[in-house]
Amino acid sequence: MTEKPYVLGIDIGGTNTVFGIVDARGNVLATGSIKTQKHHVFDDYVDELYQAASKLITDNDANDKIYGIGIGAPNGNYYTGNIETQINLPWPAPIPLAKVVSEKFGVPTLVTNDANAAALGEMTYGVARSMKDFIMITLGTGVGSGVVVGGQMVYGHDGMAGELGHLTARRGGRPCACGRNGCLETYCSATGVVRTAHEFLAARPDEQTTLRDIQVEEITSKDVYDAAVGGDKMAKDIFEYTGTILGEMLADYASFTSPEAFVLFGGLAKSGEMLMRPLMEAFEKNNMPMHRGKIKIMQSGLPQADAAVLGASALGWEAGRQAASTVATPAQPSVANS
Amino acid sequence: MTEKPYVLGIDIGGTNTVFGIVDARGNVLATGSIKTQKHHVFDDYVDELYQAASKLITDNDANDKIYGIGIGAPNGNYYTGNIETQINLPWPAPIPLAKVVSEKFGVPTLVTNDANAAALGEMTYGVARSMKDFIMITLGTGVGSGVVVGGQMVYGHDGMAGELGHLTARRGGRPCACGRNGCLETYCSATGVVRTAHEFLAARPDEQTTLRDIQVEEITSKDVYDAAVGGDKMAKDIFEYTGTILGEMLADYASFTSPEAFVLFGGLAKSGEMLMRPLMEAFEKNNMPMHRGKIKIMQSGLPQADAAVLGASALGWEAGRQAASTVATPAQPSVANS
Repeated sequence: MTEKPYVLGIDIGGTNTVFGIVDARGNVLATGSIKTQKHHVFDDYVDELYQAASKLITDNDANDKIYGIGIGAPNGNYYTGNIETQINLPWPAPIPLAKVVSEKFGVPTLVTNDANAAALGEMTYGVARSMKDFIMITLGTGVGSGVVVGGQMVYGHDGMAGELGHLTARRGGRPCACGRNGCLETYCSATGVVRTAHEFLAARPDEQTTLRDIQVEEITSKDVYDAAVGGDKMAKDIFEYTGTILGEMLADYASFTSPEAFVLFGGLAKSGEMLMRPLMEAFEKNNMPMHRGKIKIMQSGLPQADAAVLGASALGWEAGRQAASTVATPAQPSVANS
Repeated sequence: MTEKPYVLGIDIGGTNTVFGIVDARGNVLATGSIKTQKHHVFDDYVDELYQAASKLITDNDANDKIYGIGIGAPNGNYYTGNIETQINLPWPAPIPLAKVVSEKFGVPTLVTNDANAAALGEMTYGVARSMKDFIMITLGTGVGSGVVVGGQMVYGHDGMAGELGHLTARRGGRPCACGRNGCLETYCSATGVVRTAHEFLAARPDEQTTLRDIQVEEITSKDVYDAAVGGDKMAKDIFEYTGTILGEMLADYASFTSPEAFVLFGGLAKSGEMLMRPLMEAFEKNNMPMHRGKIKIMQSGLPQADAAVLGASALGWEAGRQAASTVATPAQPSVANS
């Protein structure tokens, strides 16, 4: 019997749930999606997901060839397989994701949060393939992270480890959605860039900037990026500020687990030299002497469009392996009933 | 053949090198010590260590019963077995500690830094015996740490991980011996307490305090503790300040690896409620909501006098196991030459 050659990766976002069939080299055979919030009953959502994914599997001649299913979901807990805490989804927490999906599909399933999934994707198919110690940082609306130590994802005693976006960048700083103050993600996310723009515009009322051509409450991090690329002084200062804080914090994280590299992903990570120059300067300046010049800061190696599905799918291999090693233990002899 | 029942733990300090024979339950059969800095040639130092430890082993009927040797040393690197960087020792770095000691004793030997050794000691014999995820914090002249994740010590890609004393407590704060500013250990170590005393005395010149009965450059953290216990307002404020910063930082560390507990060790950790009340208040206040009330802060479970030897000895078991699993692989048949 050949080992099943594919995994199914499922990325659950607030708006869309995207899924895809992936092979061991990270080739995405096909993807599909459904709306996450259409059903008020969780089982109805899983039913629709099952119908849509089953059709994709059949259409791609992959029936009985799915080794495992990996799911990336906000607040997904690897240990329990649940989404533990109430978030922007219509179903009451804890949501028993792994259990219901594995029963529905009849395929071993594991769950983790989206940033951990991204790290697994880089480790399985991306730039971190040869690495045992690295830290994934996803710069989106918030800042997510996945920490890998000695080749193992760090889940912590309760599955909630790796919240590097909530380490304190500025003591007593900006209020964070987590209820605390000064978290990294209030500065170094897409929304953090917008907050910095608001602060700079208010603090420097006499300075000319193309950012004033936009309604202040409409400004996006993309607007700030475009203005900076166009040479706007304040917009460039905003990226300088953002990159410096991120570089300072990455240096602190380096003292914690001494990774071979940081891997950056997300819209903001694609800001090029605008972000990377101040980031690298602050990183090297704030690194402990023993780390200077030795820790790489890399861009994700996965195609952005498929990265979430690839990350989730990477966990599918582990789900399959875990199930295989369980099945491999001698079973009780089965007794025919009829 | 019975497995050898003892390990030898060696703790190399700037002044004394202490060693002891330890059994699997953490009973210390006997200890001895030599002066670390007596010999200018490293091999002479190892010779004296070998003579003294061999006598101890013979006197305790432990010849051929030492399973492995573990060494805790400042900047000791687990991967290379060396002391990598120049420190307050008379021999040029890198110092090939594991290699020379294992050859001299004919016993498998591993090396790590003293804080990692302390964590291994707690995991093997102390309060962290049942834990897979915890963080050891040693509060001495500096602040050391050992991070355990999923039952494994975190060494990082280069063996230099777990420098939590050098995460930034105050951005742009006090100069640190590492060349950077604001590191935790400039505030929350014995020397940090003294620096805070100097700052408070200078900033509050009109305030009466028994600390002024001591020559300012002679003040120790013990003096501050004694004054605080005696009810001195400024001394109590110094502990409030110290405990608050430590609590804030431990909350950040909790967001990183989500440990089951922090284990505190060292003179300052024994300050009781004076330190622990503000520490716990700041820890809970600064923890992410999901961690509040769930992560323990514990005192070391090892007897202070033997803790360093016990910590180092814990690594001896691993050294023995590694060697045993290497030997167990089929060897080439040996050919007689004569």
